[in-house]
Amino acid sequence: MQDSASVGIVNPQVTHIDQPLTLKSGAVLNCYDLVYETYGELNAQRSNAVLICHALSAHHHVAGYHSEDQTTVGWWENMVGPGKPIDTNRFFVIGINNLGGCHGSTGPVSINPASGKPFGAGFPVVTVEDWVEQQARFATWLGIEQFAAVIGGSLGGMQSLQWGIAYTERVRHVLAIATTPKLTAQNIAFNDVARQAIITDPDFCGGDYYSHGVTPKSGLRLARMLGHITYLSDDAMAEKFGRDLRSGTYNFGYEVEFEIESYLRYQGDKFASYFDANTYLLMTKALDYFDPAHAYQGNLSSTLKNSKSAYLVLSFKSDWRFSPDRSREIVKALLDNNLDVTYAEMTCRHGHDSFLMFDEHYHDLMRAYMNNILL
Amino acid sequence: MQDSASVGIVNPQVTHIDQPLTLKSGAVLNCYDLVYETYGELNAQRSNAVLICHALSAHHHVAGYHSEDQTTVGWWENMVGPGKPIDTNRFFVIGINNLGGCHGSTGPVSINPASGKPFGAGFPVVTVEDWVEQQARFATWLGIEQFAAVIGGSLGGMQSLQWGIAYTERVRHVLAIATTPKLTAQNIAFNDVARQAIITDPDFCGGDYYSHGVTPKSGLRLARMLGHITYLSDDAMAEKFGRDLRSGTYNFGYEVEFEIESYLRYQGDKFASYFDANTYLLMTKALDYFDPAHAYQGNLSSTLKNSKSAYLVLSFKSDWRFSPDRSREIVKALLDNNLDVTYAEMTCRHGHDSFLMFDEHYHDLMRAYMNNILL
Repeated sequence: MQDSASVGIVNPQVTHIDQPLTLKSGAVLNCYDLVYETYGELNAQRSNAVLICHALSAHHHVAGYHSEDQTTVGWWENMVGPGKPIDTNRFFVIGINNLGGCHGSTGPVSINPASGKPFGAGFPVVTVEDWVEQQARFATWLGIEQFAAVIGGSLGGMQSLQWGIAYTERVRHVLAIATTPKLTAQNIAFNDVARQAIITDPDFCGGDYYSHGVTPKSGLRLARMLGHITYLSDDAMAEKFGRDLRSGTYNFGYEVEFEIESYLRYQGDKFASYFDANTYLLMTKALDYFDPAHAYQGNLSSTLKNSKSAYLVLSFKSDWRFSPDRSREIVKALLDNNLDVTYAEMTCRHGHDSFLMFDEHYHDLMRAYMNNILL
Repeated sequence: MQDSASVGIVNPQVTHIDQPLTLKSGAVLNCYDLVYETYGELNAQRSNAVLICHALSAHHHVAGYHSEDQTTVGWWENMVGPGKPIDTNRFFVIGINNLGGCHGSTGPVSINPASGKPFGAGFPVVTVEDWVEQQARFATWLGIEQFAAVIGGSLGGMQSLQWGIAYTERVRHVLAIATTPKLTAQNIAFNDVARQAIITDPDFCGGDYYSHGVTPKSGLRLARMLGHITYLSDDAMAEKFGRDLRSGTYNFGYEVEFEIESYLRYQGDKFASYFDANTYLLMTKALDYFDPAHAYQGNLSSTLKNSKSAYLVLSFKSDWRFSPDRSREIVKALLDNNLDVTYAEMTCRHGHDSFLMFDEHYHDLMRAYMNNILL
């Protein structure tokens, strides 16, 4: 079914953690489930483990398939597999669904043991720092003292950066792709419109829609449509859709008319049919909150002063959501600390979503960096 | 009350037009009202008339005040008045609310004479071409054969461009500011998210919310919040709001937290309290449809081949909604036709909204151009 460069059919695993986790908000999760997948083999020295951190809408299923059905493919199949840039013949790769997610790890849809009902609006807000704490504990449980690399794009890149700050002795290489040390006002503004779309949907029911037998599909659909625009570049949209009309002529009404409308509404509908609205809210808040330099008077160089990891920072010129300027801020702070840093700005035209797409230069760079990691 | 450079207190006027107007969609408006204001005096030669075309959310009330209440100020008070760049001591300036609007001209909120109820969803979609036709007829009714200038920003700029195409013999100078010869896929995408926010609001009631005693406030609020982000530049938002927190600390919830959230929600609420949702839908459709070169195989130079007007084209470097590249397309097409064209790209930092803001360089340029118009 799959090509030889795929890890093939994989089975997610679940672990139950009983050690209480105090979140940044002060809330405590007494116990929780984490769902994860692994690809490749942990070597005898336990020196080849790689953690993949997921972004807003993704999860633990990074590579391979869940069944013969090709649509069950992992979200980074083009990057992770035997012979691929993150080579599972060499590395033991871990994908994990973060707390607050809606793909198996404990989140708003999970049953709250205290009430016997879904957490819903009662699920605490989680931060990038919380996730990294959760990932570090999970690594310990798995017997991994140090990762060869922690890798992520976008919100995932924030997690890899946080590893370099909070757990530098446990990660030799931090790969931060299409990310930022903090959101701008514009970024936060887009997130707030998305959240308001969900929260003001009458079917949101204050976040406890599960018990009302409804979901805030309209709001979640709008949030996704809006998000999608910001993940693509103006040029990429112009190339793919331009002003193409579905019927070749104006219909002077509000049904789908331009191809771009059809595409966006379809993406919105699809997403709203499977993703949890409360998780969406949580993920956007985690994005907004991430600002590790805040505790250092906004000085990112000071924030990274104890980091000992090596870094690969990658940005995409067409990414206007987290533009190369943001990556340059990271690189500057790393250089201020005389850290080992490799940086590239790539020309892929897909905007922010470029980090998920196949591009020869991008993949060659990733491959070269990963191949140079000593085990 | 007002400074000496204001036209002072003005009274809107209404005219009833009985001549049927066939719209581009094929729909016919048998009669309609138009509300307008004028500032300054029409000279004896009738050669000093200037038409101001409004953008998405504006109207006929361009300058002056409707009462002693300062909040009744016109939307372009900084540009239009005695001694201002568009000098009412020299020009007879007209502001008019376009068909489909919600400020006095016939639109979805108006009573349909055929049914005795508001038009609502039954009001026909109008285009930039329809508005220019309506404006030309109105000018004839007012006894103005030729405008010294037709001026507009954004959607208003599309109307001034259309004047130079359809009625070039009736306009000596076309001033097209922060505009575009057509929307990109990204522009259309933002508009469609705004429309979907309104249409999927349960209080939209298929567009006939008037008879249900409700208005789709949530949807309109979201549409405005989203629009507002695209009117500002990333830099302007960073300068004005940055990551400032209302209470100085994270509250780990979904109430207003960042100042930018407070600002956007306030703007959205305010707008939704007075603007008509059906008008918003119509206005965004007019934006999407404008593409005068479409009838000329996409060739804007051919589209303008019969134009005899002189042009001032202005763009703002920080405008990412209608970027300077779009204005350059217009300028190129004008130059291809050896037309008289003045072009400037200005550095105002406010993004698309710069055309509404005071800026010395921008206003000096406008003043110089207007002062050079022969009467």
